[in-house]
Amino acid sequence: MFTHIKSVEAWLKAADRLPVNVKFVIEGEEEVGSNHLDQFLTDNRDRCRCDVAVISDTSQYGPDTPAITYGLRGIMACEVTLTGPNQDLHSGVFGGSVANPANGLARLIAALHDDDGRVQIPGFYDDIVPLTDEERRNFANLPFDEASYVGNLGISDVYGEAGFTTLERRWARPTCDVNGMISGYTGEGPKTIVPAVASAKITCRLVPNQNPQQLTANLKQFLSERLLPGLSISFVDQHGAPAIVCDLHSPYMQAARHAIEAGFGTPPVMIREGGSIPVAGSFKDILGVDTLLLGWGQNSDNLHSPNESFRLIDFHNGTRASAQLWAALAGQSE
Amino acid sequence: MFTHIKSVEAWLKAADRLPVNVKFVIEGEEEVGSNHLDQFLTDNRDRCRCDVAVISDTSQYGPDTPAITYGLRGIMACEVTLTGPNQDLHSGVFGGSVANPANGLARLIAALHDDDGRVQIPGFYDDIVPLTDEERRNFANLPFDEASYVGNLGISDVYGEAGFTTLERRWARPTCDVNGMISGYTGEGPKTIVPAVASAKITCRLVPNQNPQQLTANLKQFLSERLLPGLSISFVDQHGAPAIVCDLHSPYMQAARHAIEAGFGTPPVMIREGGSIPVAGSFKDILGVDTLLLGWGQNSDNLHSPNESFRLIDFHNGTRASAQLWAALAGQSE
Repeated sequence: MFTHIKSVEAWLKAADRLPVNVKFVIEGEEEVGSNHLDQFLTDNRDRCRCDVAVISDTSQYGPDTPAITYGLRGIMACEVTLTGPNQDLHSGVFGGSVANPANGLARLIAALHDDDGRVQIPGFYDDIVPLTDEERRNFANLPFDEASYVGNLGISDVYGEAGFTTLERRWARPTCDVNGMISGYTGEGPKTIVPAVASAKITCRLVPNQNPQQLTANLKQFLSERLLPGLSISFVDQHGAPAIVCDLHSPYMQAARHAIEAGFGTPPVMIREGGSIPVAGSFKDILGVDTLLLGWGQNSDNLHSPNESFRLIDFHNGTRASAQLWAALAGQSE
Repeated sequence: MFTHIKSVEAWLKAADRLPVNVKFVIEGEEEVGSNHLDQFLTDNRDRCRCDVAVISDTSQYGPDTPAITYGLRGIMACEVTLTGPNQDLHSGVFGGSVANPANGLARLIAALHDDDGRVQIPGFYDDIVPLTDEERRNFANLPFDEASYVGNLGISDVYGEAGFTTLERRWARPTCDVNGMISGYTGEGPKTIVPAVASAKITCRLVPNQNPQQLTANLKQFLSERLLPGLSISFVDQHGAPAIVCDLHSPYMQAARHAIEAGFGTPPVMIREGGSIPVAGSFKDILGVDTLLLGWGQNSDNLHSPNESFRLIDFHNGTRASAQLWAALAGQSE
């Protein structure tokens, strides 16, 4: 966002005018579901009319490898709560005679994957657009040092759905992750109780043609069918958004390639990413335009994590690429 | 405890002396494993020498049904922590390529039971002393209103190991319960992360001949063998104590029956309980004496739960029974 503001300032300072009209849509609710954005775009369709959208919320492929992200995963999210006894119970006096919500929740979560790491929600893989052979080859040709990846994360090995590479798993295969869970006593030392309640936040990352609404309903039914006797289940729906994959060969995509090569001094690689940017779907559905996902950051920037950062060189190169983009897009529209 | 102090005061006030010597051992660490009691009893074996121990930490069978508890379950406890990446990760950027500690923990916990509610820790049932036919008949003859039990707990049904009644499950069958678990983000709303860590507190209630040390080792191995690739596992051992079952027909047991009948106006039923009172095992092992478990409280007293309470009538009846006990034990020792 700030690189695009800076590039607009630079154009106005150097040339007194921009080569194309630029409209900013500033969304402050993206991380919590963009609940009001679709209505805003619908209400302001005329003011927002444009040829193409530009979002810089993705990453470069590496420190010297700028990238255009032509695909993003979608997302579905819901919180599940299991309720057992009306209060925490003494695990000696009552244990063994009532279903334990924490054990019961673990049972539900464990059922979400088979031993090959495949998600067991009914219909989960039915409509998926598979990776093309060309995409799998492209991904395989990208430099990727799995030993460094593992080392940087401090884990002993990667893990995921059987039959796919790490890049394929991150960019183009769906997931089902627990983001948080809590039950009973979580302080220091023991407390011998059967908890009254257990809950978990679950998100699935989706790939093209997976329907977040339908699969959320399937997830709820899947969990509800596996409930231990005596437990009750409730859900809080959170945000959902489908995955997107853009045309690799549109004229806007060509303009973006030129702009990035000019800004960073090297042409971009064409990648997909595993995160979700639901607004790109809204721009397509409501405004009818594609989105250029031009990534200035790095995977090592610790997005959503402690010590999140953004390198100054990427800020400056990104600003230069943005400035070039307005000219390149003006050329495309001639 | 206070009933016994009051009864001693009453004897001293009314008769200037007690009919037997009474020694109090006051233990403040019972709920956190009694880590120092065994050493204290060993160091003070002579000062603690006695004929029989008396503990009132059990419950009556019901409001009008005092009870002697001749059996208690043992306990083993440990905390397990799974560690994945070195910090919480963006579930879009990394999800699908690294094992999720919360999903991995759920997988371990779910594996602890089969679909019949039987615990899957290796060797868990191997050495168990089964309920005798007489005990099962006795339990079946006790008044037990399962509809009230379920209603009081606010659950829709009981649940436990297949093939046993609710009283058998609570008193004489082993369990494996999660007392608490936590992972990742547990505040309001979503947060799209793969958590770095997940942990759970697990306790098993044990029945006679189950060895807490051996089964804790088996539990750890069972969990360690089921770890998803890339996760590491660690444990914090907590307290363990074997189950106990006492002689129904000892002279001290007869004295206790008479004392309770005198104090409460009705003879006690002979029951087992599901909780654990490890000190009874220490009295046996170190001092060589049996323990009379004389219960003054009610199952509705909300032990270890909010609104824990103790009825005044039970306090007064228990104090009377305690006063009678000293006389009855004196009679037995003549």
